[in-house]
Amino acid sequence: MFGAATSRSIAIDAMGGDRGPDAFAQGVALALKDPEFDTNFDELILVGDESILFPALRKAGISGEKRIEVHHASEVIGMDEKPLMGIRRKPDSSMVQALHLVRDGRASALLSCGNTGSLMAGGTLRIRPLPGVERPALGTIIPTRESKFILLDAGANPEPTALQMCQNAILGSNYAKVAIGKERPRVGLLTIGTEEGKGSARIHESHERLKQLDSVIEYTGLIEGFQVFQNHVDVVVCDGFTGNIVLKVCESLFKMLSGYLKDELSANWLRKTGAFLSMGAFKEIKHQLDPAQYGGAPLLGLKAPVLKAHGSSDSESIAGALKIAANALKYDMTEHIREDIEKATQVLERISEDNSTNGPEKEMASS
Amino acid sequence: MFGAATSRSIAIDAMGGDRGPDAFAQGVALALKDPEFDTNFDELILVGDESILFPALRKAGISGEKRIEVHHASEVIGMDEKPLMGIRRKPDSSMVQALHLVRDGRASALLSCGNTGSLMAGGTLRIRPLPGVERPALGTIIPTRESKFILLDAGANPEPTALQMCQNAILGSNYAKVAIGKERPRVGLLTIGTEEGKGSARIHESHERLKQLDSVIEYTGLIEGFQVFQNHVDVVVCDGFTGNIVLKVCESLFKMLSGYLKDELSANWLRKTGAFLSMGAFKEIKHQLDPAQYGGAPLLGLKAPVLKAHGSSDSESIAGALKIAANALKYDMTEHIREDIEKATQVLERISEDNSTNGPEKEMASS
Repeated sequence: MFGAATSRSIAIDAMGGDRGPDAFAQGVALALKDPEFDTNFDELILVGDESILFPALRKAGISGEKRIEVHHASEVIGMDEKPLMGIRRKPDSSMVQALHLVRDGRASALLSCGNTGSLMAGGTLRIRPLPGVERPALGTIIPTRESKFILLDAGANPEPTALQMCQNAILGSNYAKVAIGKERPRVGLLTIGTEEGKGSARIHESHERLKQLDSVIEYTGLIEGFQVFQNHVDVVVCDGFTGNIVLKVCESLFKMLSGYLKDELSANWLRKTGAFLSMGAFKEIKHQLDPAQYGGAPLLGLKAPVLKAHGSSDSESIAGALKIAANALKYDMTEHIREDIEKATQVLERISEDNSTNGPEKEMASS
Repeated sequence: MFGAATSRSIAIDAMGGDRGPDAFAQGVALALKDPEFDTNFDELILVGDESILFPALRKAGISGEKRIEVHHASEVIGMDEKPLMGIRRKPDSSMVQALHLVRDGRASALLSCGNTGSLMAGGTLRIRPLPGVERPALGTIIPTRESKFILLDAGANPEPTALQMCQNAILGSNYAKVAIGKERPRVGLLTIGTEEGKGSARIHESHERLKQLDSVIEYTGLIEGFQVFQNHVDVVVCDGFTGNIVLKVCESLFKMLSGYLKDELSANWLRKTGAFLSMGAFKEIKHQLDPAQYGGAPLLGLKAPVLKAHGSSDSESIAGALKIAANALKYDMTEHIREDIEKATQVLERISEDNSTNGPEKEMASS
């Protein structure tokens, strides 16, 4: 029965992803070495083919760990399968079984590196959104020089209404508390010019509503593209179309630059020597900015934390995602989101009523 | 009288921008050293305060050049003035005077580093869009490791219709010929997943229309954010909201990374020595990727080429922008755009008629 779970157990879809179950077993082993993580969960349930998972756990040296369980599932949803097809046609897949463990209260959070579309569809259909949440949003962590910020929605809902944008702000604010440890995260709305009248109808309507939500979130106003890396805000709210493109363009630009630099630095012996001497600089930057360490992008707004890690996640990324999932349970992110959404709905409904009493005003946009 | 100009004269709003008239005079001097540029224009008309411009030209060592003229204008539109206000209230500003030189056929192209909003409003109102062009678009050049691409619209029209998106594809294709020298530029439509059904209504409708335009442009289909730096296309078409954000996020990420690297490389003597030895690598990358060298972002679709250069442009950026303006005149970009828009309008109208004859179908979106 949903919601009955008081345990802090995490279901892991251990078959999805490009690197296979070994990466999961090693990721779990890595996470267990962190004493904080160790006290933050009750059980880890690896879901997948037993005949593969048991050897993987042995190989990673954690087959004896009491709080690790294996839940057998015979199928796997492929990375290229059509999202809904996979969920519907493979009831015994590791992803669907993991979803059901959460739905049925056996686990309280889920981690998967599998097919993103299937996880979004499956999470929405099987775990369901929280009451009042119109559409879940995909949150991502983007590292900057001094800190990091949450960008959402990264692609779950390409054309949100103004109300859904406000809900995204609340989802992102709660995720920032869990994932980057901010007590009162600053939330900005991404647009193309902070002057009056610039942007789009969606931006104007969202901005007006967000300004009313100061009892719920710390909304600092509109921000432009050039400000996202300047530590102005902890949460950047945008529609899922813009967010997905921004995320992918950033990842791709970073990758292009790293590869370019690497090749140029090994073009001759002089440069190679120089690069060797200044190695520390590159390591420091890589350590701060490498997206791999922030392994998870949660589908926010569901009745339990559902984290999607990159298909190409290695053990380090998986360990990072597991820690975020455990943090989300420790902080009870889902309950906080539920309360905040309820509060915001009341505020926005009151304004909407005032507007319709006080004269003709634009109705609140709603899908 | 508009359109009567057969000369290749370029009007330069020489007062706008952060660095003042000296940067323009030096930029002109730099451009004149390029033998190709030298044969590509008839006259350069610097518009602004005579008492400042003449000394600036002397200082740059080009006061004797016969094909340089100074057109006096007593006012300047500030960088922070409201776009339309500036245009309306300062008829004797360097920007308005430069616009009028083009409108009246005294010049055939315009370059300004001034207030972007004023230039967009002024260009649209005083120079006017070409027949059939619904809204002008701002085109920008983004360098990549192997090449560069045109991103448009970078902010002129945040919420275009599908028809306007198709027109942007045509504008961008012609600009790519001029600015990056491609004979048949590959045009892609930026979206968030190339699978059937992903994206937005705007993307679906634009994609269907663009597929019909193979007699006009080389449309290669949908592309995702991670592909823009992978040399898949020469022109990336998107709405002005997404384009502006992508451009500013990229610039800002690049700037953050450069600054970070510079600081880390000078953190101690070992790293400094290393950086000195591998200097060549950094120079090569900076040379290839520095956005400054691609000084101009044209407002495309007007009756004459109007180029906006960064407010912070130095002489090198201004020289780069002047060469692009001269190239646009040499190639007769405006005439090619006019022809292509006419062709595309015929194709799209024919399809629209066929659709209404053959049964009920969605009407062509139009503002």
